Amino acid sequence: MARKVHIFDTTLRDGEQVPGAKLNKRQKLEIAEQLAKLNVDVIEAGFPCSSPGDLEAVREISRQVRGPIIAALARTVKEDIDIAWEAVKEAERPRIHVFVGSSDIHIQKKLRSDREKTLEMAVDAVRHAKSLCPDVEFSTEDGSRTEFEFLCRIIEETIRAGAGVINVPDTVGYALPEEYGDLIYRLRQRVVSMERVLLSVHCHNDLGLAVANSMAAIRNGADQVECTINGIGERAGNASLEEIVMVLKTRAESYQATTGIDFKEIYRTSRMVSRIMNVPVQPNKAIVGSNAFSHSSGVHQDGVLKDRTTYEIMKPEELGIRQQTLVLTARSGRSALRHKLAELGYSLDSETFQRIYNRFIDVADRKKEITAQDLQTIVEIEVSKVFETYKLHSLQIMSGNKMVPLASITLEKDGELHTDAATGNGPVDAVFKGIERITGITGKLCDYDLKAVTTGTDALGEAMVRVEIGDAIYSGIGTSPDVIEATARAYLNAYNRYFANGGAEKV
Amino acid sequence: MARKVHIFDTTLRDGEQVPGAKLNKRQKLEIAEQLAKLNVDVIEAGFPCSSPGDLEAVREISRQVRGPIIAALARTVKEDIDIAWEAVKEAERPRIHVFVGSSDIHIQKKLRSDREKTLEMAVDAVRHAKSLCPDVEFSTEDGSRTEFEFLCRIIEETIRAGAGVINVPDTVGYALPEEYGDLIYRLRQRVVSMERVLLSVHCHNDLGLAVANSMAAIRNGADQVECTINGIGERAGNASLEEIVMVLKTRAESYQATTGIDFKEIYRTSRMVSRIMNVPVQPNKAIVGSNAFSHSSGVHQDGVLKDRTTYEIMKPEELGIRQQTLVLTARSGRSALRHKLAELGYSLDSETFQRIYNRFIDVADRKKEITAQDLQTIVEIEVSKVFETYKLHSLQIMSGNKMVPLASITLEKDGELHTDAATGNGPVDAVFKGIERITGITGKLCDYDLKAVTTGTDALGEAMVRVEIGDAIYSGIGTSPDVIEATARAYLNAYNRYFANGGAEKV
Repeated sequence: MARKVHIFDTTLRDGEQVPGAKLNKRQKLEIAEQLAKLNVDVIEAGFPCSSPGDLEAVREISRQVRGPIIAALARTVKEDIDIAWEAVKEAERPRIHVFVGSSDIHIQKKLRSDREKTLEMAVDAVRHAKSLCPDVEFSTEDGSRTEFEFLCRIIEETIRAGAGVINVPDTVGYALPEEYGDLIYRLRQRVVSMERVLLSVHCHNDLGLAVANSMAAIRNGADQVECTINGIGERAGNASLEEIVMVLKTRAESYQATTGIDFKEIYRTSRMVSRIMNVPVQPNKAIVGSNAFSHSSGVHQDGVLKDRTTYEIMKPEELGIRQQTLVLTARSGRSALRHKLAELGYSLDSETFQRIYNRFIDVADRKKEITAQDLQTIVEIEVSKVFETYKLHSLQIMSGNKMVPLASITLEKDGELHTDAATGNGPVDAVFKGIERITGITGKLCDYDLKAVTTGTDALGEAMVRVEIGDAIYSGIGTSPDVIEATARAYLNAYNRYFANGGAEKV
Repeated sequence: MARKVHIFDTTLRDGEQVPGAKLNKRQKLEIAEQLAKLNVDVIEAGFPCSSPGDLEAVREISRQVRGPIIAALARTVKEDIDIAWEAVKEAERPRIHVFVGSSDIHIQKKLRSDREKTLEMAVDAVRHAKSLCPDVEFSTEDGSRTEFEFLCRIIEETIRAGAGVINVPDTVGYALPEEYGDLIYRLRQRVVSMERVLLSVHCHNDLGLAVANSMAAIRNGADQVECTINGIGERAGNASLEEIVMVLKTRAESYQATTGIDFKEIYRTSRMVSRIMNVPVQPNKAIVGSNAFSHSSGVHQDGVLKDRTTYEIMKPEELGIRQQTLVLTARSGRSALRHKLAELGYSLDSETFQRIYNRFIDVADRKKEITAQDLQTIVEIEVSKVFETYKLHSLQIMSGNKMVPLASITLEKDGELHTDAATGNGPVDAVFKGIERITGITGKLCDYDLKAVTTGTDALGEAMVRVEIGDAIYSGIGTSPDVIEATARAYLNAYNRYFANGGAEKV
């Protein structure tokens, strides 16, 4: 009988620590709902004491998302734990996750404390958390660099204080698979009470070994792995969820362990996280990269055509990656579109379908063929759409390298048209300034990326922006065959997210 | 005494098999020269029988690049081997690399042969290669899935036939570290003649374990690892060079093995490969990702400020990653620019410096501050510049979502100005059509990416395009604070590469 490995997803906590990937409440909820569909065991939803916005987001996820355990992070400080409990107490199955640095370097250099005080703090914190919440996880931060005897003691004591899950992270991504596996093995041998709790691991990818370290730990008895979608996270990121679950699946005979993951949601989850958090996935990323299942050399293509198993060890369709054979044109009607959307796995309410149909016709008028990828882009944008306080009505630009670029822009708000013009360093800058004049709100562009979703000069361009408005960063996406229009739509989308959040909420 | 692990870089062979990353001769040479600076032991420069262009590129690298061994790949076919020799014979130290599928699935399904015939082909091929070239490497393709007894036999026989390097690849990325390490260990135990040759490994990343598998092999006696810059390669890519060498360096006490790599060239090489091959590096890529050394959460920042070792196990400056403190403006003179360029590690001839200075002033006029990153972008583009058959003189566009976009464009050729206009689906499309009208050459846009290199609406935009002209694909890059101008420059850059290659060379 294969044992079960629990998948603890920390995309919304450790993943969200990626510079520029900060999410608002609505975005966190959207990803949490997808993680529930993916059927992870635990969603670490945030670090509620870090900001009121994060507290609010974790609370909302606790109220709405059913299925996985919802965990919140806290330092070994009473107020942190109280806020974490505040955030998760309405969850179906809440968990408080308490951590403290346990290596000498963390204790001495960061906490400026000593082992005995750290141990006491950890025990008090776990006891307090346990008085609030039946499910408490305790993490020995920098566990892989912690002196073994002290590591055993702090684990024994926190189990006694009520921790039901013990996590031993490789916080700085320093461990090697053999030694990390050995550490897990020795801990299980040595700490007798470990039998009563779940042993968890949490690996970082600084040396490119996060997945290998997680796998070595699983082989040596780890019950839970902490990981993120696309491997995003601090610095070089965390262990990648999709890689871990696919190693377990592809090499099941070797590990004799399974997960509850719904594989066919993997690709969709990867795309959603990349898009909403605006962290691109490189083409050669294992499992979810755009080239992960492309065979390009003649030798390989020849082999795959003769027998897929010559060069392919996984089936892309099992991960929800569809073959891109579908082609629609402006002459494809509603039912053809509905049929193709169903094929792509979307079931949509009629209002959303109408929005998608309108956008599809708008794009198809200017572009000969709409591929599955175009369609997926349109759907993802429309499905996750915010209320449009301002709608793009029209836009004109004049620009050149020997003239001052200018733009006129007309936005619709509550049925009324507002027009203004502005100049800028380039046409995009001029458009942004025009939007700022009409809305009366000044933003700062933090990040801008535009790519062709398909090939050919009539390709659909997809612009992604991150705009700082007030204290918060809002992301926006826009598509159009015209790159300036795509960019304007993306900028306006970010502004509409700002307005949808009451125009003042910090994220 | 630490033993030496040989670094065999296959960026220009396995890496180049990435869809859309095909390089022309000049680009391959440029990367090969940088790999020599990085001080890899072997450069696998190509698969000469795959195309006359690749033969020519490998020959040029063999003539010009000094330091590393130059290897060329060949199937176990006489003509392949003859062409491979043709390509590398002028190298300082040439190597012919012969491969054949050795697993039953490859032998039966792909080669439609049997073990005995395959063995005979391998031996004949190695013998023929050895008659031409003193250094012959033999690879048992799909080695990790090859039946052990047959694997030992084919290795023994090819060593007897003259192979000096035996490579046992995990072609489909199926292996797990424990079993791959064990395979290497058992091979060394079993095949006595292995002592006289170098044992090489070559791992693919389909399950995210390429680096871990390479490390397990090194621990069990592998002498050479085959890897690529940024881990690019077929499907999910190859083992990443920078990760392997940094594991060996950071955990030297555990492996007792070193490489000859010049660490401070790592980051520059990574950037160059990403740019020339147009394969982006995701921000959370280990070692070379833009976030690999960013600490974003408050807890981590606090720790790093108190002591870097709390969260940092490598020093970014050792990899050639510079802190971005430098700021220049339009008022910075030539000597300030020269000083800053020297700080960034560039020593430039006066003609190139003048080009960079002109471009710097042009950009600085429109942008308040030029950061180190801006400057690096400008230098990288100017240094790798092709001869400008057509120069961008001026450009004007008018566009909007309720009008037909149009562009006028003026290009300079041999001192004469040529102006034309065109309409398009968007302003970019109109500009491309204008360029096509003037040059008389029609291209097909295969890939388009535009990103802000810095923040703010006055950010420097960097456009990358790949354009199919005739049978070949040319890449181009352009920068400007105006996204349309950046795109026009990128498109023109691709055209100029086409003309520089005689307007007809296949790449």
